[in-house]
Amino acid sequence: MNTQNITITLSETKKEKPQSDQLEFGQVFTDHMFMMDYTEELGWHDPRIVPYQPITLDPASMIFHYGQSVFEGLKAYLTEDERILLFRPEKNFQRLNKSNDRLCIPEIDEELALTALKQLIETDREWIPTAEGTSLYIRPFVISTEPYLGVAPSGSYKFIMILSPVGSYYKEGIHPVKIAVETQFVRAVNGGTGTAKTGGNYASSLKAQEVSGKMGYSQVLWLDGVEKKYIEEVGSMNVFFKINGEIITPALNGSILQGVTRTSIIELLKYWNIPVTERRISMEEVRQAHKNGTLEEAFGTGTAAVISPIGEFFWQDEKLLINEGKTGELSKKLYDTLTGIQRGKLEDPLDWVVEVTKASSLSTVR
Amino acid sequence: MNTQNITITLSETKKEKPQSDQLEFGQVFTDHMFMMDYTEELGWHDPRIVPYQPITLDPASMIFHYGQSVFEGLKAYLTEDERILLFRPEKNFQRLNKSNDRLCIPEIDEELALTALKQLIETDREWIPTAEGTSLYIRPFVISTEPYLGVAPSGSYKFIMILSPVGSYYKEGIHPVKIAVETQFVRAVNGGTGTAKTGGNYASSLKAQEVSGKMGYSQVLWLDGVEKKYIEEVGSMNVFFKINGEIITPALNGSILQGVTRTSIIELLKYWNIPVTERRISMEEVRQAHKNGTLEEAFGTGTAAVISPIGEFFWQDEKLLINEGKTGELSKKLYDTLTGIQRGKLEDPLDWVVEVTKASSLSTVR
Ligand SMILES: Cc1ncc(COP(=O)(O)O)c(C=O)c1O
Ligand SMILES: Cc1ncc(COP(=O)(O)O)c(C=O)c1O
Repeated sequence: MNTQNITITLSETKKEKPQSDQLEFGQVFTDHMFMMDYTEELGWHDPRIVPYQPITLDPASMIFHYGQSVFEGLKAYLTEDERILLFRPEKNFQRLNKSNDRLCIPEIDEELALTALKQLIETDREWIPTAEGTSLYIRPFVISTEPYLGVAPSGSYKFIMILSPVGSYYKEGIHPVKIAVETQFVRAVNGGTGTAKTGGNYASSLKAQEVSGKMGYSQVLWLDGVEKKYIEEVGSMNVFFKINGEIITPALNGSILQGVTRTSIIELLKYWNIPVTERRISMEEVRQAHKNGTLEEAFGTGTAAVISPIGEFFWQDEKLLINEGKTGELSKKLYDTLTGIQRGKLEDPLDWVVEVTKASSLSTVR
Repeated sequence: MNTQNITITLSETKKEKPQSDQLEFGQVFTDHMFMMDYTEELGWHDPRIVPYQPITLDPASMIFHYGQSVFEGLKAYLTEDERILLFRPEKNFQRLNKSNDRLCIPEIDEELALTALKQLIETDREWIPTAEGTSLYIRPFVISTEPYLGVAPSGSYKFIMILSPVGSYYKEGIHPVKIAVETQFVRAVNGGTGTAKTGGNYASSLKAQEVSGKMGYSQVLWLDGVEKKYIEEVGSMNVFFKINGEIITPALNGSILQGVTRTSIIELLKYWNIPVTERRISMEEVRQAHKNGTLEEAFGTGTAAVISPIGEFFWQDEKLLINEGKTGELSKKLYDTLTGIQRGKLEDPLDWVVEVTKASSLSTVR
């Protein structure tokens, strides 16, 4: 695929940009978007940057019926010296293709996708917010577009990337969340779609969230779908524990999403020579550790909040308060290091950060 | 909800209708569609029949990202004396609301939906195909439309119904299918979305279908997601067995879709005083029955094919040939009776059939 073929059509009007310090998550979108089409005849073709615009689809399009879709989520950051940084974007496009494979969606050229993303960001660079803790959220996604009411892989698709300036996840600094352990509903099982980032996983999670939300818990911790004993992950975060000095995260067992933040934390801990164990961990083990005072910290990890300290678990009518509901030392250190690297404030010892420069643009503006 | 408020805007041009004897499934759509919108402010509002037309959505619309959607599938039949019949349509709208509840989608007025459907069919009645075995397939569906990249129930939805004239499922009369028993992938588990008709269930099934399709099996039989032992259902059919005179179908265990055809067969067998058991049944039991010659029949049941005799199961490198690969007596009797009732050729002893008449239309044509 010749990446020089990405065409750019600039928007004639520019939308008003929101105040950098008043941003919500995922509600405002920039002036442009990237789009590319797939047909059986032409494969993926016509990569283009166009004004942000609605998508028009036949009501029989498969996305409306059989949920064949995948997505990704990553962020671009503006440094103090006005460089634009991405955090391991190649990992997101690798995972996109892993999701594509599970959902029978044709593979996307990862290099083309990254080049296109850089050009899109360059085109809308004025939209990257500057206030402390803000960033530009990036949403690549693929939808199935063939108008056909049969359960089969679609013959046509659209790959789209849209950008949204987002506020700081923690308006008043990093602080712990309360999480309900889900005992009725199940997110995924081995053999299902848990390792893929596909819409159905999130649709099925809404009910559990609604129920626990009513009880004052913003997110749920999923247990395994077979025995409802072993810890999997939080709504859109992986999860780590520090028990008696050991740092533990559930092993990738075939139903957990492999988070880029999770991978990076494991690599960072190894780089620091701090042992980290990927293994099966039950909720009962966490309860026992809490009981005997060895549950030192728990935190979620994901693109949105980076590190989300967990101050309390609610499980089977019991409240497990962790570290007196305060942010733990390790959580804080990981948060500061990761966000420091992502925003170009700290050295990048593991070569994670990718800069977006004008030079990465080689496209035709028409 | 005042059902008189359904407005009708007629199409100015009419599409060419396909030959009644050359119809495929779900590829051609009629001149009109039904649409109704939901917002938090207004609830479900503006029910309307409009020309069949594309849907225009913001690329951030939730349906493209988080798969919050549900659908239904039923059929309308034209009798020899030109009456239009629906088969237990109220069951489909009840199930739609059951699916809505699982997916956190606001409830739809079932009476309004049925009235709207009748009016839509009446509007496009010329599209109902007449050839032997053909029908008008009806696809009601709900999509989440709010442009917001957060995992939460959408604040806005569209409920749409489209119609497609479809050919006979069996071009050369009822005949058995070959089915592969899935041992790797899982459709659903208790606590998941298996009892709802939502896109994600079908998206996740594509991979298994692709794999078994390459081996020459058109559909897969799903086993339970926990032990991978117990029989659940086929791709888009429930399943029945006749073993040593006992008619068995897997009990509704929290991960199986409750098919309208399944319910009707159970009711019909009871009406005939033929015992039918809803219970757990393992694939091993079926294998044993095959081995000792007591596996008399197996068949799938669903709106598309009504009854689909199963001539062969492929499981763990073994082929289980059933009834010498021929259609069994019970399968044939159920097929003839159900299709006879649906098409108004046989008496309707359990009062299943609903007629679409001009009188059911009370709407404003504008
Ligand atoms: C289900 C789920 N788990 C974990 C994560 C964390 O992944 P990442 O660190 O790549 O953002 C996400 C978010 O992408 C997610 O949706
Ligand atoms: C998963 C699944 N099971 C069973 C069925 C059969 O249901 P019904 O008899 O209502 O068509 C369908 C089709 O709707 C289905 O999609």
